[in-house]
Amino acid sequence: MNFLEERIIKDGVVKEGNVLKVDAFLNHQMDIELFDQMGAEYKKRFEGKEINKILTIEASGIGIACMVARHFNVPVVFAKKSKSINIDGDMYTAEVESFTHKNKNQVIVSKKFLNEGDKVLLIDDFLANGCALQGLIQIVKQAGATVEGIGIAIEKGFQSGGQVIRNLGYQLESLAIVDAMDSETGEITFRAQEK
Amino acid sequence: MNFLEERIIKDGVVKEGNVLKVDAFLNHQMDIELFDQMGAEYKKRFEGKEINKILTIEASGIGIACMVARHFNVPVVFAKKSKSINIDGDMYTAEVESFTHKNKNQVIVSKKFLNEGDKVLLIDDFLANGCALQGLIQIVKQAGATVEGIGIAIEKGFQSGGQVIRNLGYQLESLAIVDAMDSETGEITFRAQEK
Repeated sequence: MNFLEERIIKDGVVKEGNVLKVDAFLNHQMDIELFDQMGAEYKKRFEGKEINKILTIEASGIGIACMVARHFNVPVVFAKKSKSINIDGDMYTAEVESFTHKNKNQVIVSKKFLNEGDKVLLIDDFLANGCALQGLIQIVKQAGATVEGIGIAIEKGFQSGGQVIRNLGYQLESLAIVDAMDSETGEITFRAQEK
Repeated sequence: MNFLEERIIKDGVVKEGNVLKVDAFLNHQMDIELFDQMGAEYKKRFEGKEINKILTIEASGIGIACMVARHFNVPVVFAKKSKSINIDGDMYTAEVESFTHKNKNQVIVSKKFLNEGDKVLLIDDFLANGCALQGLIQIVKQAGATVEGIGIAIEKGFQSGGQVIRNLGYQLESLAIVDAMDSETGEITFRAQEK
């Protein structure tokens, strides 16, 4: 097990309905040292990739992205979520449908901060069905920039998001892939990862 | 001028209606090195204060808070904003009214992550009328914790939030206090600060 998997075992809580609560260290209270370790790990996994910008999405991606950015020495842009329809022309927008909440949201990034030729690393805390991520990819494409890699903290391997993204040829690095969870026993099964 | 004031002059844009756009480096695109410098500055200004937790509010406070946390070696908790009324008993909630948007929002923090005796540093990007900050202070009080200090990036000195907070006896450290802005000339007047 790697450091994130160990932390999930220690402080994560499995709830009914395939919910994994990691709010003690990842997405409500945030362990900055852990995020720093994640940054070092992404730096290793994306070695050789030329990256000049990190793109994430509010709110829980922001903290991780900032700590990761230190390792790549690049600025972070966070996409905003909005229900509003009226966006002025200075914004890239992608409409994404949430599988979990059954509603549509817009993902928005100012055109000023994403440009043709940008080499982008996408960062987020969770990947399940991947709708937020699909919105980010769509926006990078709109800008004429390229997705050089995708760094996720926890992927729910029993949902389709990760597979779709890998099938599309992206380098997706999830530090922990949960293949199964049992809310009665609290047991979590991680997918084996190459060293 | 200090480093943040210089950056505001360089990359900030004054818009009509006393709006200061700093989305190039503070609250949409984020300059991580700048945030790190801010962390070092807060560490100096709150010297001698015993702080064991940083509390901020989504979304644009999170990045700053994470970089500041490195200098204090403490975890960050970010409060969530919600319009929903039904919150279970495991949450501290404060209802705050936005002066800007004229709507009411709840500020929410899980009881697990804020405890009696916690010594809290509040961090946010902007302080204008201070309603978000008032919600955070209310929540710290609910927890039986104490506000040891408040670190703000940019305070709008011509609005009342900062004065109220200082009148209440809190150590409020705003790295840049804008006393006046002119959207026609783009001129920004900063309040003089002690060295």
